[in-house]
Amino acid sequence: MLRNRLFSPTMVAALLGGAVVMIPTLHSFAAGGDAHGEYALTFLWIAIVLLAAKVSGLVERFGQPAVLGELLMGVAIGNLALFGISTFEPIKADPMIIFFAELGVVILLFQIGLESNLKDMTRVGYPAVMVAIAGIIFPFILGAYLVGPYLMPGLDTNTYLFLGAALTATSVGITARVFKDLGKLKIKESQIVLGAAVIDDVMGLVILAIVTAMVVTGSITAGAVSMIVLKAVLFLGGAIIIGQITAPYIGDLFSRIHTGAGMKFSLAFSIGLILAYIASLIGLAPIIGAFAGGLILDSVTFKRFRRPEFCEDLDDLAKSSDNATKEKLQSVVRHYDHKHVEDLLEPVGQVFVPIFFVVTGMSVDLSTFADTSIILTALGLTLAAIVGKVAAGFFAGKGTNRWLVGFGMVPRGEVGLIFATIGMGLGVVTGGVFSAVIIMVIITTLIAPPVLTAILKRM
Amino acid sequence: MLRNRLFSPTMVAALLGGAVVMIPTLHSFAAGGDAHGEYALTFLWIAIVLLAAKVSGLVERFGQPAVLGELLMGVAIGNLALFGISTFEPIKADPMIIFFAELGVVILLFQIGLESNLKDMTRVGYPAVMVAIAGIIFPFILGAYLVGPYLMPGLDTNTYLFLGAALTATSVGITARVFKDLGKLKIKESQIVLGAAVIDDVMGLVILAIVTAMVVTGSITAGAVSMIVLKAVLFLGGAIIIGQITAPYIGDLFSRIHTGAGMKFSLAFSIGLILAYIASLIGLAPIIGAFAGGLILDSVTFKRFRRPEFCEDLDDLAKSSDNATKEKLQSVVRHYDHKHVEDLLEPVGQVFVPIFFVVTGMSVDLSTFADTSIILTALGLTLAAIVGKVAAGFFAGKGTNRWLVGFGMVPRGEVGLIFATIGMGLGVVTGGVFSAVIIMVIITTLIAPPVLTAILKRM
Repeated sequence: MLRNRLFSPTMVAALLGGAVVMIPTLHSFAAGGDAHGEYALTFLWIAIVLLAAKVSGLVERFGQPAVLGELLMGVAIGNLALFGISTFEPIKADPMIIFFAELGVVILLFQIGLESNLKDMTRVGYPAVMVAIAGIIFPFILGAYLVGPYLMPGLDTNTYLFLGAALTATSVGITARVFKDLGKLKIKESQIVLGAAVIDDVMGLVILAIVTAMVVTGSITAGAVSMIVLKAVLFLGGAIIIGQITAPYIGDLFSRIHTGAGMKFSLAFSIGLILAYIASLIGLAPIIGAFAGGLILDSVTFKRFRRPEFCEDLDDLAKSSDNATKEKLQSVVRHYDHKHVEDLLEPVGQVFVPIFFVVTGMSVDLSTFADTSIILTALGLTLAAIVGKVAAGFFAGKGTNRWLVGFGMVPRGEVGLIFATIGMGLGVVTGGVFSAVIIMVIITTLIAPPVLTAILKRM
Repeated sequence: MLRNRLFSPTMVAALLGGAVVMIPTLHSFAAGGDAHGEYALTFLWIAIVLLAAKVSGLVERFGQPAVLGELLMGVAIGNLALFGISTFEPIKADPMIIFFAELGVVILLFQIGLESNLKDMTRVGYPAVMVAIAGIIFPFILGAYLVGPYLMPGLDTNTYLFLGAALTATSVGITARVFKDLGKLKIKESQIVLGAAVIDDVMGLVILAIVTAMVVTGSITAGAVSMIVLKAVLFLGGAIIIGQITAPYIGDLFSRIHTGAGMKFSLAFSIGLILAYIASLIGLAPIIGAFAGGLILDSVTFKRFRRPEFCEDLDDLAKSSDNATKEKLQSVVRHYDHKHVEDLLEPVGQVFVPIFFVVTGMSVDLSTFADTSIILTALGLTLAAIVGKVAAGFFAGKGTNRWLVGFGMVPRGEVGLIFATIGMGLGVVTGGVFSAVIIMVIITTLIAPPVLTAILKRM
């Protein structure tokens, strides 16, 4: 009883809270500068981000997906400096944390590719292409020819073009996490959004190349555009076709060395990473390669590998069981064997994926919301971003929830930021416009999870 | 048939081989300099290291532990430059890879702590302390007063002291992996070695502080020595006692937020990382903290969390089964529930741990073996390193295989390198002596896995 009172959960929480405030003091006390100490500090940041992400899972109590909690927790931690608490500021700048976040979104898309089915994806090919094209054209026109010139008159035409371009590309990570959190990755709308987002990313790249060329040289050749399109199509088509054909042989080859879970996992994970690398090599986002890698792999690839360890125990048990029990045991074995690679990848995802979302939230600078004239422009941009994508959702075809598809395309995430950053580098995007784009990205990113959840719950 | 011939495993292997040679060409072709591209290259390095590690698992065919394969594979990849192939040289210098390796050894020691049992560890407390003390004194005397002055006459006394100190500390990672690979972590000898290695590391730190002070100031106060010892003892004792008491409450607290596998895993992993950080904060190696973290956590910590997903299915099955089947199913459930955290950590270990061993192997520069005078010194040092620790093994007490304990203490790994590096920084360790220490580290590290395996197989 006494022991219970001495170490109540509240007290533990209070102690943990106290420890957090002591971190910077303690760390500067330790002999600084050695590599061990620097790495160890990153260990601490990883632990803090992971625990914060898990605590933010409380939003699930309110029917919201975990990803919204992680984003909001990131926003909270990232803006504590506004209240004088700068303990966690180094997290944003830690190169290892940034790398973990990048790897996190790659692993997420790989996981989503694994859970997706190439057959289901091609079945939604036509509506996905239509949604992608409409989802590029509408926001671009709204941004470049309406919101830009109307809310920010007198700027260079190229600035308006960049504004429009920044509105085009969908950040598939947020939407995919929402569908994954709510167990809806397999529904038709989810597959359309995933397909459209991948096409979006490829077309966004083409638009970026065109707009950049127009700013730099004042014109662009049809040849250069075709080249970019060709590379992207060749990569996606090539990866999927060659991957589909060779994956069983690669699986066979490595199963000759070892058939255990370690080999199964390492092979799958490496294939995802290698395709992410190849995508980046030809100028595509690594997440597209990782997604393609996940699509390629299926149970055929790993048919020569051992099943999960507990399945051996159940098999032994099945031998001495009556027929009804045997059948049930075998069905359990089949189920878990089928998703063994996904299950092995899950804890690895648990390490990296929340870091991506918390760090994305941390990059939100709430002080940008202080300037009302920027806020007005930002709201106009946000409206264009939402209306453009929701309208595109109506090209998803009959028998689908078009609002779900449309809102699934809304989050811009890091892709919009990349556009704005390049525009700033070219000198056509200035401070105020940049802030407006950032606010647009924040709002579209934060609004998607609750809206998608609400639509899914009404279906 | 035709398809079979077109894509035979040999052909796939040949294609992969061809692709490897193309990597640097392709990469310099891609628009370099952007963060995405740099990260993507690290993705590729991770995939290559993981696949190489898994291929090296072929050594298991010859009854050798996987860790030996990983080390040798690292030596091979790391020395390809001697044959003009410098494709993989950037891996050694990639800061992310180095961080992954550091985190890898931390995760390994955390895993080993989880699998170890505090009760078993304290049971071997006395022999572990004896082995640790003897294992420090013998190699130090052999190095500082015999091998040093005899093989390298005319050098400064401080150099001999540093040589002796470099021989003292055991690198627990290698031995622990061998015991883990061969499923022998629970045997008494393994527990003695683990305990002694942790004590070793603490005492090694004290010796380093003393020797450094003697070099810098020519003397050291008893107060300074006591301070270091006190910090180390307080940390280990404090972490284990406070951890043991608070862990159930912390588990309870977080289980109120979520009881799923994600929370279970993240909480355990974060506790390991936080203790690694605290250890580093007070000047101990992070691996000691991670090991203590693993020791603290047991099934009591996670008693309020959900069991593995498939256990729910088996429970449902048990309800409708006869008593004999029900009992067997429940025993399967108990078994996998008990090691659930270890199982969740396993794939994460699969990502990071092999990177540590391959990168350790890569740091071996075979060209240091070219200088025969250095080789002679190195062999003398190696002999002292082996004899000193094997002799210490004889303090393991009756009823234990003393050779197994002794050879378990032999690998010096990165700890010896740290000593040599600091000595070089102080100006007392010169190029030739440094090379000799490196060769000693290489040989003791590479010799331990096969010798331990041979001893274990004869038991």
